[in-house]
Amino acid sequence: RRCGFPEVIYAEGKTVEAVQAIVARLLEQGERVLATRVSAEQAAELVPMFPQAQYNQLGRTLRVDPEGTSQAAIGHVAVITAGTSDRPVSEEVRETLGWMGVQVTMIYDVGVAGPHRLPSRLAEFESADVVVVAAGMEGALPSVVGGYVGCPVIAVPTSVGYGASLGGIAALLSMLNSCAANVTVVNIDAGFKAGYLAGLIVNKIHAK
Amino acid sequence: RRCGFPEVIYAEGKTVEAVQAIVARLLEQGERVLATRVSAEQAAELVPMFPQAQYNQLGRTLRVDPEGTSQAAIGHVAVITAGTSDRPVSEEVRETLGWMGVQVTMIYDVGVAGPHRLPSRLAEFESADVVVVAAGMEGALPSVVGGYVGCPVIAVPTSVGYGASLGGIAALLSMLNSCAANVTVVNIDAGFKAGYLAGLIVNKIHAK
Amino acid sequence: RRCGFPEVIYAEGKTVEAVQAIVARLLEQGERVLATRVSAEQAAELVPMFPQAQYNQLGRTLRVDPEGTSQAAIGHVAVITAGTSDRPVSEEVRETLGWMGVQVTMIYDVGVAGPHRLPSRLAEFESADVVVVAAGMEGALPSVVGGYVGCPVIAVPTSVGYGASLGGIAALLSMLNSCAANVTVVNIDAGFKAGYLAGLIVNKIHAK
Amino acid sequence: RRCGFPEVIYAEGKTVEAVQAIVARLLEQGERVLATRVSAEQAAELVPMFPQAQYNQLGRTLRVDPEGTSQAAIGHVAVITAGTSDRPVSEEVRETLGWMGVQVTMIYDVGVAGPHRLPSRLAEFESADVVVVAAGMEGALPSVVGGYVGCPVIAVPTSVGYGASLGGIAALLSMLNSCAANVTVVNIDAGFKAGYLAGLIVNKIHAK
Amino acid sequence: RRCGFPEVIYAEGKTVEAVQAIVARLLEQGERVLATRVSAEQAAELVPMFPQAQYNQLGRTLRVDPEGTSQAAIGHVAVITAGTSDRPVSEEVRETLGWMGVQVTMIYDVGVAGPHRLPSRLAEFESADVVVVAAGMEGALPSVVGGYVGCPVIAVPTSVGYGASLGGIAALLSMLNSCAANVTVVNIDAGFKAGYLAGLIVNKIHAK
Amino acid sequence: RRCGFPEVIYAEGKTVEAVQAIVARLLEQGERVLATRVSAEQAAELVPMFPQAQYNQLGRTLRVDPEGTSQAAIGHVAVITAGTSDRPVSEEVRETLGWMGVQVTMIYDVGVAGPHRLPSRLAEFESADVVVVAAGMEGALPSVVGGYVGCPVIAVPTSVGYGASLGGIAALLSMLNSCAANVTVVNIDAGFKAGYLAGLIVNKIHAK
Amino acid sequence: RRCGFPEVIYAEGKTVEAVQAIVARLLEQGERVLATRVSAEQAAELVPMFPQAQYNQLGRTLRVDPEGTSQAAIGHVAVITAGTSDRPVSEEVRETLGWMGVQVTMIYDVGVAGPHRLPSRLAEFESADVVVVAAGMEGALPSVVGGYVGCPVIAVPTSVGYGASLGGIAALLSMLNSCAANVTVVNIDAGFKAGYLAGLIVNKIHAK
Amino acid sequence: RRCGFPEVIYAEGKTVEAVQAIVARLLEQGERVLATRVSAEQAAELVPMFPQAQYNQLGRTLRVDPEGTSQAAIGHVAVITAGTSDRPVSEEVRETLGWMGVQVTMIYDVGVAGPHRLPSRLAEFESADVVVVAAGMEGALPSVVGGYVGCPVIAVPTSVGYGASLGGIAALLSMLNSCAANVTVVNIDAGFKAGYLAGLIVNKIHAK
Ligand SMILES: Nc1ncnc2c1ncn2[C@@H]1O[C@H](COP(=O)(O)O)[C@@H](O)[C@H]1O
Ligand SMILES: Nc1ncnc2c1ncn2[C@@H]1O[C@H](COP(=O)(O)O)[C@@H](O)[C@H]1O
Ligand SMILES: Nc1ncnc2c1ncn2[C@@H]1O[C@H](COP(=O)(O)O)[C@@H](O)[C@H]1O
Ligand SMILES: Nc1ncnc2c1ncn2[C@@H]1O[C@H](COP(=O)(O)O)[C@@H](O)[C@H]1O
Ligand SMILES: [Mg+2]
Ligand SMILES: [Mg+2]
Ligand SMILES: [Mg+2]
Ligand SMILES: [Mg+2]
Ligand SMILES: [Mg+2]
Ligand SMILES: [Mg+2]
Ligand SMILES: [Mg+2]
Ligand SMILES: [Mg+2]
Repeated sequence: RRCGFPEVIYAEGKTVEAVQAIVARLLEQGERVLATRVSAEQAAELVPMFPQAQYNQLGRTLRVDPEGTSQAAIGHVAVITAGTSDRPVSEEVRETLGWMGVQVTMIYDVGVAGPHRLPSRLAEFESADVVVVAAGMEGALPSVVGGYVGCPVIAVPTSVGYGASLGGIAALLSMLNSCAANVTVVNIDAGFKAGYLAGLIVNKIHAK
Repeated sequence: RRCGFPEVIYAEGKTVEAVQAIVARLLEQGERVLATRVSAEQAAELVPMFPQAQYNQLGRTLRVDPEGTSQAAIGHVAVITAGTSDRPVSEEVRETLGWMGVQVTMIYDVGVAGPHRLPSRLAEFESADVVVVAAGMEGALPSVVGGYVGCPVIAVPTSVGYGASLGGIAALLSMLNSCAANVTVVNIDAGFKAGYLAGLIVNKIHAK
Repeated sequence: RRCGFPEVIYAEGKTVEAVQAIVARLLEQGERVLATRVSAEQAAELVPMFPQAQYNQLGRTLRVDPEGTSQAAIGHVAVITAGTSDRPVSEEVRETLGWMGVQVTMIYDVGVAGPHRLPSRLAEFESADVVVVAAGMEGALPSVVGGYVGCPVIAVPTSVGYGASLGGIAALLSMLNSCAANVTVVNIDAGFKAGYLAGLIVNKIHAK
Repeated sequence: RRCGFPEVIYAEGKTVEAVQAIVARLLEQGERVLATRVSAEQAAELVPMFPQAQYNQLGRTLRVDPEGTSQAAIGHVAVITAGTSDRPVSEEVRETLGWMGVQVTMIYDVGVAGPHRLPSRLAEFESADVVVVAAGMEGALPSVVGGYVGCPVIAVPTSVGYGASLGGIAALLSMLNSCAANVTVVNIDAGFKAGYLAGLIVNKIHAK
Repeated sequence: RRCGFPEVIYAEGKTVEAVQAIVARLLEQGERVLATRVSAEQAAELVPMFPQAQYNQLGRTLRVDPEGTSQAAIGHVAVITAGTSDRPVSEEVRETLGWMGVQVTMIYDVGVAGPHRLPSRLAEFESADVVVVAAGMEGALPSVVGGYVGCPVIAVPTSVGYGASLGGIAALLSMLNSCAANVTVVNIDAGFKAGYLAGLIVNKIHAK
Repeated sequence: RRCGFPEVIYAEGKTVEAVQAIVARLLEQGERVLATRVSAEQAAELVPMFPQAQYNQLGRTLRVDPEGTSQAAIGHVAVITAGTSDRPVSEEVRETLGWMGVQVTMIYDVGVAGPHRLPSRLAEFESADVVVVAAGMEGALPSVVGGYVGCPVIAVPTSVGYGASLGGIAALLSMLNSCAANVTVVNIDAGFKAGYLAGLIVNKIHAK
Repeated sequence: RRCGFPEVIYAEGKTVEAVQAIVARLLEQGERVLATRVSAEQAAELVPMFPQAQYNQLGRTLRVDPEGTSQAAIGHVAVITAGTSDRPVSEEVRETLGWMGVQVTMIYDVGVAGPHRLPSRLAEFESADVVVVAAGMEGALPSVVGGYVGCPVIAVPTSVGYGASLGGIAALLSMLNSCAANVTVVNIDAGFKAGYLAGLIVNKIHAK
Repeated sequence: RRCGFPEVIYAEGKTVEAVQAIVARLLEQGERVLATRVSAEQAAELVPMFPQAQYNQLGRTLRVDPEGTSQAAIGHVAVITAGTSDRPVSEEVRETLGWMGVQVTMIYDVGVAGPHRLPSRLAEFESADVVVVAAGMEGALPSVVGGYVGCPVIAVPTSVGYGASLGGIAALLSMLNSCAANVTVVNIDAGFKAGYLAGLIVNKIHAK
């Protein structure tokens, strides 16, 4: 239970049996289970094995809570995405935060090229504890969001784009060079990491 | 007189004598002269040679108009910069447009991390024929500007930044991937090219 | 209707239902519809849904005009390609300009290694308002075209090539470094962006 | 006062007069002043101008508090460095946190190649609110630290190294790929950003 | 028999007939045979051809010993892996060392983010002649191992990871920049090379 | 005398004494001497030592023929440059060919953006045995030249340019991707290599 | 008939009908036909259409000579390959030279790691007019060959390798930096270009 | 005394006082001292402080043995360099091995482009325990050496070269892709690392 949370299963490249075994062990220990990068094929076999299992197809996450668990969600994280294609990443963020017991507001389709869209939604994210922003292509959204809020902004570059987007490298470089001082960055498509960090910060704030 | 404009002198690596000779020849032909990338050392020798010479130290440009020339400026280009360090590039844009007889509005210090600054200046650039945006670091400003205007936006990445800005490559990639459809890009620090293209478009519009 | 044109649908990664819904909404608003990056599979389902639909297989674009629309085309854009393999990109340019109501001349197969081919066609493009050039491999064509015309040249690097072409990066770098001052650049394979910018400039010129 | 803190001066490339003017204005507004990337030459002129000025030569920061200011420091951030050469960056972190009124513990010379050094100092950082780790060369230290603590770890790659360190790119990539889920990353040598983010999180936690 | 060992077959891209012929020739010469990068399809045909054949599916190696061979294994190499996904590479290391007659200890799942795991296994590798470490993502493990042992450490970056791992480049750069002086590096996923070098060193030591 | 020519001295990083010694030894053997990358400082000391020495300041070459040598030049190589800044490289080509006893035609300032300049000089290079083209920035000239001639074209990318020229990498990639089949490439700024290869081919042709 | 040779068909991405049409036209003009990058699928349809057609499966080339043509081959090119996997490229070289009427000696499997293999074959290539060397991985072979011969060496990097071979970039860079002065380079996997250049040089030599 | 050897001082960026203090402490402990990357300026101050100090100007190393120390050198490492410019790196290798008490044979100027030079010296290195090869530019020498010997070959890429050598990256990639199975690689210009690893292996062999 490093950081106060149980182990998270990275399902990519693992057999269904391997994943099943870890899920079963964690449930026995009374833990709430999160597996990421679970393919539709893996999920088709795993979901029937656990009555409580919830598969998020877009975010490729599998969650299984021990029976009878219920948790009052705390804090507030806003998850903002520039375009539709960034949604798989933001769903991974959302599920990670749900598993950590954190309240989430999802704000979609507020890319920088429609500059009136983001401020019109300001009320929904300006009081968040942390904001997570997922954006591909030029990756400009975190800088703009960083200008509207006083809290930490966790930027997730996505691999969305073509040509000179170089599989997310353009967005990654852009975010690292953000002129907003409150922006920090995780790996390309690393929705889990962004969510986990946001959840840790929320827990630090609300555990006080 | 390709494109209807005389030759422009690229002074980098040329001797003072070489530049002087081209300036003199162009003046004799009755042309207005523009030299770019003129160092302070070159200028110190060149300026006294031509009574009409105007040296822009920040933009490193030298202009020499034939005596008695005067030209009514046409059109309207807005030149927008994100931060103070991008000014050498925007001065090169301004001088190039001045030489082409185009009216220019300079808008400084409206970086994306202060998101209220740009819209507060909208009146100054929304009716421009073309907007030029110079930005370094994450290079996000052209995308945001592109969302506010309906005209072509010419983005100039600058080499301003450190670390992962990679001498302007981060800003260049960001601009090429702009999700605003009206953004086109020139080389890093290529203020001359951005100005020249903007000037050509203005001439096409107002020559009609 | 940013820039005076309705929204364009980027179909890549969208479901047929999602695309259909946006097409229907735009038609209801009386708009002429353009969708780009539409796969043959998406088109096979979408075309029968809209009697006016026109699918360009090479350019992967879908256009649907409201019934009874007809528009006199204005201006003149020349679209020049170096080789046969660059045609998917130039078709995307052509359809974008058609949708914007701009007249287009297509000039094929005038790569720089056959240096007599381009000047023999000069009459067809020297009076254009804007020239778009799509080229892969070494991406040298825009520089040469830029030397023949006085108007803006929009260069589109294509991902055509192998080995050190690096998926279009070689052509992109080449175009950014063009020694012709009237060349500006968009993303690799970004036929839509090149067409859109050319269309905006034409509209600026002929709207006067 | 974005994020509840006044503007920070980025002195690189600014004239002494420009920096002096901003410092004076901020002091007049009763703000505590921080300037970063202040060269020894700039400092030699600025320090005598303001009696309260404190210049950190290693970290290249200048701080000026309004007379009579005193602030009880809150929270706890541990700043860990791998080697001696990373100290300029960690000093920038320390000064930024000092300016934000946050308590700091500095832990030096605990590089991963001496694996007993870090755990022997665990008592000093395991209860920190946030840990900042600055490391160059292979940039492995944040991953190891991330394994010892349950709080957010902010990793700053430094440009320390030679050959394949590529000016900090090797450390940057390493940190982005950290297998520790609680590690997030800022730009190469961006001590200010790391400190600012750590300070924001501390303020969120202790402002509750 | 360069280096005292027979030729090793690199099966990638070879036909089954080609591989079969080399195996047969080597067996006739009384040599112990190792083929690497043997696909499951190739193996399905090759294994029935040679009664002694042993196929390692994970490591994609095929070994065939001449009948009646038996060899007392010498020396001691520890093969350490950070995560489950690095196992194909470590299996290639193991098989190469087995073929060279070297004793191997496999140590799994001791990634740096669980910093207590590696020292708890120290007894198993501290007296090894050589340690091979296979790690993907940030590639930090060899540096940490290098701090615990006094023998040469051969680091194999693996292509495990996503986004900024760049197919193993991040791990490769990290390992080349290791601050542990006893770490040397081979190509990405080059389990064969790491094993071969380790085997050569063991032979040098124990042949004395 | 590999390739029928004596050793060439690469003076970069050698002491004056070291270069002097090799020159003296070669002269004693009756060889004609060529040294490349000779700095002005090295030349200032070396030239007085050898009465026959000829230093080319632009090309940074030093030639010393044994007394009484005279050689009828054979063959014909055209050396074409795009811009003034590429002349240091073309001078190195010229000197190398002179040393090899090959006739050279220099053709300057025929960059692709002035497309009428190159064909107007066709008579001077169309019958050459080999053409060498030195070009920086976008490096497009070799492709165009390759279209005009039927002989081998040796392309030398130069480090001339700024921003995305990446110190000659843009020109290098462009040339490697040339769509003219008769273009081959040497290293950036490698005037010596281009000249040497051209000289070898001429010798093969005229030695027959 | 640029360079004295008819057009060569680049079949990649062309329809069978398109290729067939060009082949038929060239045959009618009495030309010998070469098509490169012809897939097995394209060949299966094209070969039955032309009785004289010869398809080289490894080299992916199709040759069709007009009936009754016969040509005495001239000159001598040696084509040297490091490993078995480089053969597709060397077959493309061989077919190109055959089509140009040049005699070819193929020398296989003389990689630098078996340093006795190359000199043992010296008699076969030391008197060649030109040597072509195809090598992947570290691309060291052209430098070594360049040391044995006095003629031009055309190096073709191949995309053979894994990990840090970066799809042929490692071999390409290696060859560009060859310390042998008689080595020149073409694009990765560009067997056609290497053969064409070698053929042009042979024709220059033997046409005298 | 990790690995059985005392700490080595990396002098780059340290003050003379800092280096002096560590040297003095190590001498007091009776250790033999090695400092690397010691500039001529640092050495000018340090050498007079320690009567036993030996400064190697080319290799930039400083060694200080406690009075009365003498050590019989063991084993045999051959250090091979391709060209004169690689000598600073090979001197760092030599000094490191001298400090470790290992016998060294230096073999200079046996670059691959003179292929008879290396085999003519075979007697001097074929029985070595380990061979270290330092080479810049194309970095081909380790592969060739690897083919002549049966022992481990440690390759050190050097930053010698220009243009596409990319400061040693070309040589580094080449060496990582060596087709000789007994070649392993360290960082660019990392003479110390190569020497240290060679010394460790020798100690393992001869300590038995
Ligand atoms: N700052 C600049 N950046 C890029 N191109 C320039 C610049 N200044 C001038 N030029 C171009 O360089 C040409 C002259 O180049 P040159 O013949 O080398 O003096 C002019 O006609 C311009 O098109
Ligand atoms: N060392 C630094 N690195 C990155 N950003 C900084 C640094 N120092 C100050 N800043 C930011 O730069 C902004 C001021 O930039 P400027 O307007 O160019 O002075 C401040 O508000 C900070 O957010
Ligand atoms: N997985 C591998 N990676 C790198 N080199 C290998 C591998 N397997 C075999 N080799 C080397 O490849 C040589 C045979 O190559 P080839 O002649 O192409 O079959 C062997 O002698 C080994 O040195
Ligand atoms: N400018 C140059 N670029 C590349 N190679 C060169 C150059 N000048 C001389 N050389 C080569 O360097 C070899 C001498 O290298 P070195 O032994 O280091 O002096 C000569 O035989 C040439 O092949
Ligand atoms: Mg985006
Ligand atoms: Mg900016
Ligand atoms: Mg092309
Ligand atoms: Mg470090
Ligand atoms: Mg790992
Ligand atoms: Mg050029
Ligand atoms: Mg090879
Ligand atoms: Mg070398």
